[in-house]
Amino acid sequence: MATAHVFIATSLDGFIARLDGDIDWLLQRDDQTEDHGYNDFIADKDVIVMGRGTYEKVLTFDTWFYDRPVVVLSAQLTDTPVPETLKGKVRFSSLSPRDVMDELTKQGMHRAYVDGGQLVQSFLREGLIAEMVITTVPVLIGSGRPLFGTLPHDVDLKLVSSRCFASGLVQSTYRLIQ
Amino acid sequence: MATAHVFIATSLDGFIARLDGDIDWLLQRDDQTEDHGYNDFIADKDVIVMGRGTYEKVLTFDTWFYDRPVVVLSAQLTDTPVPETLKGKVRFSSLSPRDVMDELTKQGMHRAYVDGGQLVQSFLREGLIAEMVITTVPVLIGSGRPLFGTLPHDVDLKLVSSRCFASGLVQSTYRLIQ
Repeated sequence: MATAHVFIATSLDGFIARLDGDIDWLLQRDDQTEDHGYNDFIADKDVIVMGRGTYEKVLTFDTWFYDRPVVVLSAQLTDTPVPETLKGKVRFSSLSPRDVMDELTKQGMHRAYVDGGQLVQSFLREGLIAEMVITTVPVLIGSGRPLFGTLPHDVDLKLVSSRCFASGLVQSTYRLIQ
Repeated sequence: MATAHVFIATSLDGFIARLDGDIDWLLQRDDQTEDHGYNDFIADKDVIVMGRGTYEKVLTFDTWFYDRPVVVLSAQLTDTPVPETLKGKVRFSSLSPRDVMDELTKQGMHRAYVDGGQLVQSFLREGLIAEMVITTVPVLIGSGRPLFGTLPHDVDLKLVSSRCFASGLVQSTYRLIQ
């Protein structure tokens, strides 16, 4: 079975974006001279699975910076065409988290990067996440879109490593204990 | 002006207790052979300020382990007598966070340990917290009493230090940038 992996930044109070999706507070604190490990993280991932919210956010950026196939899980987008510039790079799917992981496994994929708050929550509820790299940004924003949500039961984690950066980011890697 | 300091543990998803106040998930993961720095933290604090919820939780423990004067901020408790065994150790106050800090300053106090989720949130909203030591426990509990709450504006933090323990705790110290 292919495994699902998370690499995501959150405010210290647990939000990945403001309520309107704004991530100014994150971008302002992103020191480009620091290597926060995204390239190392993505190196052994075969595919990226994201939700509609993340996809639409990424579309607003100037460049499409993913060099892996992207699956956007969205019932709403499934019957719409993929934009011309993204053909061959993106596909839409209405499968459930478990079914999309089954499908990716059958396609020979081993490791998926799962991105976006709602999708991470769904995958966690289904017990489908193997590992999370959580980067905590030194700010409290008070409200927003939460990284984590309700769960059917406690999820026990093993801390694999933790490091901090001069910019004040703290990055911790957790493996999920199933 | 006396400064207010926080030393608190939270689940990775930001809860300090379950909805019913239970902290089993925390106690189960508290490795007594590790020094998580409470003694170092408390060494230069003159007084402990806590909310009613924390006070009532601490009362359920076998021993009263505070060796500093404790002020319980609670309008509800103010007109009730302090339990006989805690006389001289605890007093109740209905002052606001700002007013209690003013009062403590006049009494010659320099640093207060502010404990309890709701109280930490109130002090943060009033811009009264100088420093926070946040210990993140490697578990997701899905719901509970949140460490952080709404804020009138973003609160910018400076990471002072971060360390992790073999048990999987990650402890980060932040100074608030006013």
